[in-house]
Amino acid sequence: MKRVLVLGAGLSASSLIKYLLENSEKHDWKIAIADVDLDRVMKKIDKHPNGEAYLLDAADTDGLDKLIEISDLVISLLPASMHYPVAKRCVDLKKHMVTASYVSDEMKSLNEEAKAAGVILLNEIGVDPGIDHMSAMQVMDKMKEKGWELEFFESSTGGLVAPESDNNPWNYKFTWNPRNVVLAGQGISRFIRNGKLKFIPYHKLFERVQEMEIPDFGEFEYYANRDSLKYRKVYNIEGIPTIFRGTIRRKGYCEAWNCFVQLGATDDSYTIESSENMTYREFINSFLKFEEDLPVEDKLAAYLNIDRNSEIMKKLEWLGIFEEKAIGLKEATPAQILQQILETKWSLDPEDKDMIVMRHRFHYKKDGKKKEVTSSMVTIGKDTTHTAMSITVGVPAAIAAKLILIEEITCTGVHIPIRKDIYEPVLKELEEYGILFKEIEQDL
Amino acid sequence: MKRVLVLGAGLSASSLIKYLLENSEKHDWKIAIADVDLDRVMKKIDKHPNGEAYLLDAADTDGLDKLIEISDLVISLLPASMHYPVAKRCVDLKKHMVTASYVSDEMKSLNEEAKAAGVILLNEIGVDPGIDHMSAMQVMDKMKEKGWELEFFESSTGGLVAPESDNNPWNYKFTWNPRNVVLAGQGISRFIRNGKLKFIPYHKLFERVQEMEIPDFGEFEYYANRDSLKYRKVYNIEGIPTIFRGTIRRKGYCEAWNCFVQLGATDDSYTIESSENMTYREFINSFLKFEEDLPVEDKLAAYLNIDRNSEIMKKLEWLGIFEEKAIGLKEATPAQILQQILETKWSLDPEDKDMIVMRHRFHYKKDGKKKEVTSSMVTIGKDTTHTAMSITVGVPAAIAAKLILIEEITCTGVHIPIRKDIYEPVLKELEEYGILFKEIEQDL
Repeated sequence: MKRVLVLGAGLSASSLIKYLLENSEKHDWKIAIADVDLDRVMKKIDKHPNGEAYLLDAADTDGLDKLIEISDLVISLLPASMHYPVAKRCVDLKKHMVTASYVSDEMKSLNEEAKAAGVILLNEIGVDPGIDHMSAMQVMDKMKEKGWELEFFESSTGGLVAPESDNNPWNYKFTWNPRNVVLAGQGISRFIRNGKLKFIPYHKLFERVQEMEIPDFGEFEYYANRDSLKYRKVYNIEGIPTIFRGTIRRKGYCEAWNCFVQLGATDDSYTIESSENMTYREFINSFLKFEEDLPVEDKLAAYLNIDRNSEIMKKLEWLGIFEEKAIGLKEATPAQILQQILETKWSLDPEDKDMIVMRHRFHYKKDGKKKEVTSSMVTIGKDTTHTAMSITVGVPAAIAAKLILIEEITCTGVHIPIRKDIYEPVLKELEEYGILFKEIEQDL
Repeated sequence: MKRVLVLGAGLSASSLIKYLLENSEKHDWKIAIADVDLDRVMKKIDKHPNGEAYLLDAADTDGLDKLIEISDLVISLLPASMHYPVAKRCVDLKKHMVTASYVSDEMKSLNEEAKAAGVILLNEIGVDPGIDHMSAMQVMDKMKEKGWELEFFESSTGGLVAPESDNNPWNYKFTWNPRNVVLAGQGISRFIRNGKLKFIPYHKLFERVQEMEIPDFGEFEYYANRDSLKYRKVYNIEGIPTIFRGTIRRKGYCEAWNCFVQLGATDDSYTIESSENMTYREFINSFLKFEEDLPVEDKLAAYLNIDRNSEIMKKLEWLGIFEEKAIGLKEATPAQILQQILETKWSLDPEDKDMIVMRHRFHYKKDGKKKEVTSSMVTIGKDTTHTAMSITVGVPAAIAAKLILIEEITCTGVHIPIRKDIYEPVLKELEEYGILFKEIEQDL
């Protein structure tokens, strides 16, 4: 009998726990789930005989130690700052560990110790990061074996609402952490194009979008997703002339979202005095000039240099931003106020489904020939528990955990899933869950 | 015999030290000047019999203590973080202290102790902050005494090049810390207008300028200077419907400077890899789209939505930003690179003079009547040592030091010069130095 310890039983844990419980009988596993909220653990276990519920505050290092001690593999879904202390104890106690989070420098520093202990610390095995790494590396390794040289690599992902639930003018709903959506893209975005470094400041980000079509799912657009440059090292393609990572939205989203960026309404760096007494309309007006005789709508259209009756203005009006409705939030930042306004409009209904869209685009050359390979994946959620986000984050991590326990993944040390011996079996099994990539090759 | 201790003998100390030495015989003072660089102390003293030079590292608390002990008043021109420890020792040793820097919360916390010790810790007595406080409070107190109610207060200051040295298309040269000029306005700017809070994000700041004329000096423009709201409390005018603080530039500067803001070239939050091998032209190109067949000039004009042959483009070309000249700075931020480009063009020549411009505008009402009061001051530098900046920062502090020593300023505790018993005698003596305000009243 082996025991898998899952730390954290929040939203993202549903599909991961379901996979582990479903596989537990065949492999003779106990699935120990620990969280500060015992209720939600019990709900996730749903009386499954191999499920074990533990009440645990992650700050309680003794309690954590005892649980790690009786386990064979630990999956940490805790906040990112907790991964390192957990990993350290796993190495000391010779236990494997899996996370869906970005590997930190601290985590990397455990590589030699983990090897010596004979365990793997596998990170970034969710969707983004996770499925993006695996599916991109699969194409890149395959083409490399065939002697093709990579010149151009673009990889984009988006968390969206499924077509059957897409019923608002923004073609968008919050399917994950709303705060991250409001703050998305702040800071600098950088990439390289034909050997030239390119930087896009935040206030221009949503104006510099590109379009894409995904077969059977229609038109999308995508904008630069932060620091694409670091992926040259991650994928060992350091001399590549073009690399770009993007975030996918439905067509028309970015030009409308850009209104909030231009206003300064996504700023999270200061609070507004007496914001609780402000109305939505006053909030928008606070970013516009004082002009006594002009309605806020007209001032906004002029500020944004758009037509008063344009589609963009219709999207904004649909959100209710011009209403004389009290904000009610005390000493809030613009971003917090905007988030609250959006949450009343962009929430998923109980019957709504979400969707994850991912697309890679590669340009290759060989013997004077050039070709483009595109590889795309769309996953639709099953319901509000097993969302596309929960499935694509949790199932890869759960599969990897299984493969480690049954010794099909045998490498040790600190890893992310860019190695063939990791990504191949995981991607293969993901296909059974409908997570599969359509590849199209064409000559350029 | 009394001794004044001046901590720091940098650029800003020249006019302050000159004033103190000139007044030292009449009042029987020794002027002790301490700095890490003994050479520059000797130059500032220039063999004056009442000058004393001390070599001092401000981190050497024992050395500092000994100097404070033998002095009657300390003027700190050290970096802002050093003011509090110096002030603490001044209170312990019962010595007065004067600084031209913003009063910190730490400094304020010494108020009761300073009172008990019978000493004054006088801060913000330079130009901005300093002369701005004094000249504005003088108008506000006078009008209040006459029963007029303040409805609108605007106060703007600019450090510029003097008209006789103004010979470039930007009508601007660096007259103070270039880094501060490059980073000016980053973060949020806020003010209140007719009772409505207003916020301007950085990327819109230089588009929302206002114009002003200063008699005999022509046209200027000004943009919002950070947090105007906090001045409601400073000046005890908390219910005021309109308050705005601005930064003054020559007309046309802001729309051209805005190009760098729009590009993202003033960003100081990240470094550019291999920046040392980049040219000026490549630096500008890094913020523009990849378009093989278009020259950088055309791409920039399109990005900024301006005419290729506009005055703005001429200003940009004059700076040399399109040249194939190596930057040479390693792993530099965009702001550092831009600063270096500007420093080759915007430096003062040895015979150049600088200029400080300050203007207040007030609206008052009384018995159904309304009037506007404007009060403006222009100071031109004497030479590159006694610049307008050095005079307007140093002389007010030096005068205040004198007034404290001859017991014409007698209040104790932590202060800024908003009290009549401080600002009246200081402003009166500043007039002898040509620092005087022209006041114009007109009915509205």
